[in-house]
Amino acid sequence: MTAAGLQLREDSGLAARLARSAAVTGEGACLRTEEVAGWLRARVLANRYRVGEIPFAALEGWSFQRDSGDLSHRSGRFFRVAGLHVRTEQGHFPEWQQPIIDQPEIGILGFLVKEFDGVPHFLTQAKMEPGNPHLVQLAPTVQATRSNYTRVHQGAPVRFLEHFRQPRAGTVVTDVLQSEHGAWFLRKANQNVIVETTAEVPPHEDFRWLTLGQLGELLRQDNVVNMDARTVLGCAPVHSGSTALHSDAQVRSWFGRERSRHQVRTDLIPLARVKGWRRDAHAIEHEHGRYFRVKAYAVEASNREVPAWTQPLLEPVGQGVVAFLTRRLSGVPHLLARARVEGGFATTVELGPTVQCIPANYRHLPPGERPAFLDIVQSAEPGQVRYAAVHSEEGGRFRHAESRYLVIDAEVDAPPGFFWVTPGQLTALAQHPHYVNVSARTLLAVVNSAGVRL
Amino acid sequence: MTAAGLQLREDSGLAARLARSAAVTGEGACLRTEEVAGWLRARVLANRYRVGEIPFAALEGWSFQRDSGDLSHRSGRFFRVAGLHVRTEQGHFPEWQQPIIDQPEIGILGFLVKEFDGVPHFLTQAKMEPGNPHLVQLAPTVQATRSNYTRVHQGAPVRFLEHFRQPRAGTVVTDVLQSEHGAWFLRKANQNVIVETTAEVPPHEDFRWLTLGQLGELLRQDNVVNMDARTVLGCAPVHSGSTALHSDAQVRSWFGRERSRHQVRTDLIPLARVKGWRRDAHAIEHEHGRYFRVKAYAVEASNREVPAWTQPLLEPVGQGVVAFLTRRLSGVPHLLARARVEGGFATTVELGPTVQCIPANYRHLPPGERPAFLDIVQSAEPGQVRYAAVHSEEGGRFRHAESRYLVIDAEVDAPPGFFWVTPGQLTALAQHPHYVNVSARTLLAVVNSAGVRL
Repeated sequence: MTAAGLQLREDSGLAARLARSAAVTGEGACLRTEEVAGWLRARVLANRYRVGEIPFAALEGWSFQRDSGDLSHRSGRFFRVAGLHVRTEQGHFPEWQQPIIDQPEIGILGFLVKEFDGVPHFLTQAKMEPGNPHLVQLAPTVQATRSNYTRVHQGAPVRFLEHFRQPRAGTVVTDVLQSEHGAWFLRKANQNVIVETTAEVPPHEDFRWLTLGQLGELLRQDNVVNMDARTVLGCAPVHSGSTALHSDAQVRSWFGRERSRHQVRTDLIPLARVKGWRRDAHAIEHEHGRYFRVKAYAVEASNREVPAWTQPLLEPVGQGVVAFLTRRLSGVPHLLARARVEGGFATTVELGPTVQCIPANYRHLPPGERPAFLDIVQSAEPGQVRYAAVHSEEGGRFRHAESRYLVIDAEVDAPPGFFWVTPGQLTALAQHPHYVNVSARTLLAVVNSAGVRL
Repeated sequence: MTAAGLQLREDSGLAARLARSAAVTGEGACLRTEEVAGWLRARVLANRYRVGEIPFAALEGWSFQRDSGDLSHRSGRFFRVAGLHVRTEQGHFPEWQQPIIDQPEIGILGFLVKEFDGVPHFLTQAKMEPGNPHLVQLAPTVQATRSNYTRVHQGAPVRFLEHFRQPRAGTVVTDVLQSEHGAWFLRKANQNVIVETTAEVPPHEDFRWLTLGQLGELLRQDNVVNMDARTVLGCAPVHSGSTALHSDAQVRSWFGRERSRHQVRTDLIPLARVKGWRRDAHAIEHEHGRYFRVKAYAVEASNREVPAWTQPLLEPVGQGVVAFLTRRLSGVPHLLARARVEGGFATTVELGPTVQCIPANYRHLPPGERPAFLDIVQSAEPGQVRYAAVHSEEGGRFRHAESRYLVIDAEVDAPPGFFWVTPGQLTALAQHPHYVNVSARTLLAVVNSAGVRL
């Protein structure tokens, strides 16, 4: 109850309603969880999809700039591949150069939510992206770059976008700018939005309503829920809890100190001048075959805003490992967060999972220079593994960028650079920009949707 | 009450205890408010202070780099004056170049708090800075750059620093990285810290305990409380309140949208190549005399870590105006925040006061290009002015950088780019980095310390 024209600052019933949605598994108002695979297959069959590798010279509208060697589109929009020079003062790799995707424009990733029989459901889209392992995965209701929604490519309008642009009829559940992969993207951010509506939403063959619990079931399967859906679900304010090993002020204090002690200098440089990388007619790659390659692709997709196009995609050289260690402290589940430097972060450090790496990149190094806790994760007994599934990253920029996501029981202490936090504390931080990185948000999505019990 | 080893995430009694401190005016445990001026005068007389303008050639350890023309110190530490090229897509000034202070290291601004007779007191320091109008102002307990506290300049150790470095004995009240003036500093941030202690704190002639209410009284006087003290007091979690015109989620959503729609590109460029600015033996200045000058100074201060030194200081060309418009909505006080682009922000946009400018810089422009609401502020009737005082910015980098800070009653609506928020909502955002800019934090300090009644 508030005075006329005022609102409560926090919707106190929201977490409970989302938890109710997370508790509904097996069947929602619209379809059973086991029917989702068939629906996705049907969407693949109903459309014509083709993705083929092509030489850079066959890209349409894309070319390497004469002076810089940067790979960019003639419109100046979408994105470009440039070079990045990173200097830090710490770690085993205090300085390096690399190609980087520069895409300054901010997109919208949005889930529309509506109650059916008192249970909030999320409007999920079957969406094809050229870099996805099975091409079609579950995406949020809206997944649009600014180029998409301002229609630079003169494609069809983005369905349901009206719920996510201001002014909006619905209620904002969350709306926060979040960074994406700082190892591959320069200062990329997207708005992660959940809006609840009570309006009629017309049905469409590419869209289905699912409960949070159903999404949790699907997150236990490999390569079904796409990154854009996972990052938004990771921001859902499901968890709270009033106690923790450290107070919220202590968590923020620790995080600020971690940012302070990492001085990172990043400079854009011409792609042609990046040391240790080479380019031929088909690929930009590291001289020792590490990290990733950039290649060109021709894409056909009969139901996308534009039915055929060509574009570069970034392809990591091996499968990643992304894991939170977890333990109960006085009965309260905690996750071991790590303060991570990634070259493309706008704010130098964000909170990542305990482990986040592509192990193949470290194979040539002595054991002491391997990522902390990677051995614990890779040698975990089955009884320690609370969650394991393979997910791929954004299929519009990355091809077959798969990581094995895990949650592992481990009775360890937090070394410097690591901190035990509760899911409620991570959830609170994820309501603000520049705290929780995209890999941690995927695992937080699994926690939020009861895809793992801690 | 929590299980063994756990804590409450939030200290629910904290806001009330700080409010109690804000209610104590006139006299604290240590001295009466009216005695502060005498104490500051005594500190000036007890020491030898001198600040004199010198030509750049007389700087010791500082010089203009041969290639870039950047003004820097031979140690590579402290700061340098470089050039900045800013490109935005909006506003009356979509592109410009300017000199900028580049100081990547993160300092500590910290207040030590302790209860006397059940009332929290803040340990305040009488500190000389060469750019301060009266040289000595009230500073926080600790005000140290990383060069200070790692003792690059081989000076004396920083008093009371042990309370602010980890591990700490006290309780963290707040600890947050906050940006500073984005028009003058490139991505500068300091840790703003309040730590509460129950330990014995040895007295010192440069330090006095004051209540928040006494600091509020002193904030009603011109040039007494320095910027470093104000920015930390602006982060004190005093205000909460459960209702507002907009929910917290709506405030964050609006803010994210404002960041999204401002695409800002900033590139460091050599100072020698900055267009529209010139340099002679005594100053770097704008060709039309606008914005600011950079000059060199020789400083003597018998009680500083180093007793004599030379350094550049940035000097704005006129007095600034910094104001919040305020109104009650259904009885609840609100402040009109503005989404501001400043070239030096790491994250393009932060929340500033309704008006923040140096009016002299706009005198040559037609009325339509003057800052919004400046006319309302400058023509306010005495009855509308709830607060007015002149404060200066950080005296270690800026010389006589004075602004008139105001809070003005005005029954206006929020145009695009502006949003009505409560002091409690600003306080909540100020617990996180990159939301509330340094000018808004000064006015929030006035609100927090009951220097103004809304």
